[in-house]
Amino acid sequence: MTIIAGEAYLMSMNPLVTTGVNSIWTAYQSQMEAVEDRLRLILKDVLPLASEMTSYIVSGGGKRLRPLLMIISSRLCHSEGDASILLAAVVEMIHTATLLHDDVVDSAELRRGKPAAHQRWGNQPAILVGDFLYANSLWLAMGLHNDEINDSLTLACKKMSEGEILELFLDRNLKASEEDYFNVAACKTATLTASTCRLGGILGGISEKGKTHLEQFGYFVGMAFQVADDALDYMASVDRLGKTLGRDLAEGKMTLPLIHCLAHVPSSSRLRLQSMIGSGESRNADLEEVLDLMRETGSIEYSLSRAREFTRLAQENLSAFPDSPARQHLFALSDFVISRDM
Amino acid sequence: MTIIAGEAYLMSMNPLVTTGVNSIWTAYQSQMEAVEDRLRLILKDVLPLASEMTSYIVSGGGKRLRPLLMIISSRLCHSEGDASILLAAVVEMIHTATLLHDDVVDSAELRRGKPAAHQRWGNQPAILVGDFLYANSLWLAMGLHNDEINDSLTLACKKMSEGEILELFLDRNLKASEEDYFNVAACKTATLTASTCRLGGILGGISEKGKTHLEQFGYFVGMAFQVADDALDYMASVDRLGKTLGRDLAEGKMTLPLIHCLAHVPSSSRLRLQSMIGSGESRNADLEEVLDLMRETGSIEYSLSRAREFTRLAQENLSAFPDSPARQHLFALSDFVISRDM
Repeated sequence: MTIIAGEAYLMSMNPLVTTGVNSIWTAYQSQMEAVEDRLRLILKDVLPLASEMTSYIVSGGGKRLRPLLMIISSRLCHSEGDASILLAAVVEMIHTATLLHDDVVDSAELRRGKPAAHQRWGNQPAILVGDFLYANSLWLAMGLHNDEINDSLTLACKKMSEGEILELFLDRNLKASEEDYFNVAACKTATLTASTCRLGGILGGISEKGKTHLEQFGYFVGMAFQVADDALDYMASVDRLGKTLGRDLAEGKMTLPLIHCLAHVPSSSRLRLQSMIGSGESRNADLEEVLDLMRETGSIEYSLSRAREFTRLAQENLSAFPDSPARQHLFALSDFVISRDM
Repeated sequence: MTIIAGEAYLMSMNPLVTTGVNSIWTAYQSQMEAVEDRLRLILKDVLPLASEMTSYIVSGGGKRLRPLLMIISSRLCHSEGDASILLAAVVEMIHTATLLHDDVVDSAELRRGKPAAHQRWGNQPAILVGDFLYANSLWLAMGLHNDEINDSLTLACKKMSEGEILELFLDRNLKASEEDYFNVAACKTATLTASTCRLGGILGGISEKGKTHLEQFGYFVGMAFQVADDALDYMASVDRLGKTLGRDLAEGKMTLPLIHCLAHVPSSSRLRLQSMIGSGESRNADLEEVLDLMRETGSIEYSLSRAREFTRLAQENLSAFPDSPARQHLFALSDFVISRDM
């Protein structure tokens, strides 16, 4: 049995990244392999016509952060049954569905270093297979007949879709505030990681207080991840993260580094920066200019400091649990999500 | 209080259509107004930024067939609480979500006689607002904490998305069979109407046998509706149904009239028909030619006869219930869905 994604993928991307999470992957290898098997099984059983596309997407080298959060949260709460494997597959499919639609909406060319699915198969299947992954995931989760799980997962899905729309309204919006940005990040990323961790607590039957701490942990991990990811967009190169540098600038996405830079740039440069954001035709020369301004305003360092703050808040929530290997792994994972490319 | 859609809409479209359903609408007017109120409330409370678009879509003159099926099925089973109003709004929102994605996928210009939402706001919001309507609907339905409802609704959503993908693979596929077509119609249309009617039975707490009959009724109503709708595409004019004649031909959609015609056309005309289907650039002259061939093969009449057959099967399932106004209304509605433009 081979792991399609996960460790091997991370190794191939950047050896430095994986050193820290190696031990985590090893500790959960059998469960994570079971998740991969489950994903393959789900996608093989249904919809043979679309199987090529779905396996390209779902096995396309995701970091499996959400399944890993699910599996470790479950172990933290002494629940390691089949339900945690199923839900790990479910949250990964929900995440993949949003990526599919995201990439169509953003006209993205690459996803994880490979052509985005809609580039290869067209927008139509990408939209519809996204719908299918989403519907199939919820149907599988509802089959557990657990109201707490249903409420948490469907609320997360609702919030995620709200976040996607809010984000669209922020594009090239020069009035976007840090608060707007954090609200979008909370909706589109942190609600699913929060729900994922809460599901582990639900399966383990722990106290409401414990579930809230786990949910908060997942929430802040999601925030840390998103803020770091948006900072990396101004730092990463294509061979390291499978995405192109400055894609957010080209798309007019008002992420934290840009919002911070716009607020702190000397007034002599503000109009120039505004026109580059608003133009809709960002060139490499623009990117260089923006990066120079960000160095002046310290916007990338500021963003990374906010990400570290979210990690700290995540880790604080773990203190509610007794020490265990699972708690240590969650702790390490919350560091990893902001350091994966540094 | 005014009814945005429904009766007024039907009246405006074609006075002949409404004569038959007038009495049905009147009998359920207070509930259907409550459904409209609920839809407005749901869409007002959330997502103010997207409210203009959602109200354009959801209040855009739909026939409200699914809410009506929900409300009448509930009354048939002596259940008229708030849950049936909520679920009527839910099934309409799910239906609307699929229309939004459908129209993007098909690059449709019109929906119900008005510019399709993606034409007015762009593809991006249309995809994302579709996702939101869908997620919000399921979240609201799950809030009833009824496993039977959850299972039925999420299975319907899963099947619908499978149907959409299957349909995509049939586009311009000269080997498409009647069986392929019926399978797509079952998935993308009949599963939701079937689930809708079953929900009425679930709320009423009737026997499993009764629920199955109601579900079968909804299934065959959906099949009748879809088959008639696809026949109308070769019969309707833009001022009557808000859609353009021959749109399916232009898009290469292998619907029943075309599949039947292709199978029964004299061999001397078959190659010509195949090339028109495959060309991807259907002109008005092509449509006239195809309509002539369909008159020769009787394909439209054949399709309508299949629709009538589905209506008969739907009506058979009603015999399991004692006579009542609600049963009579469901009976009449199943006639209406195939006669709305004849």
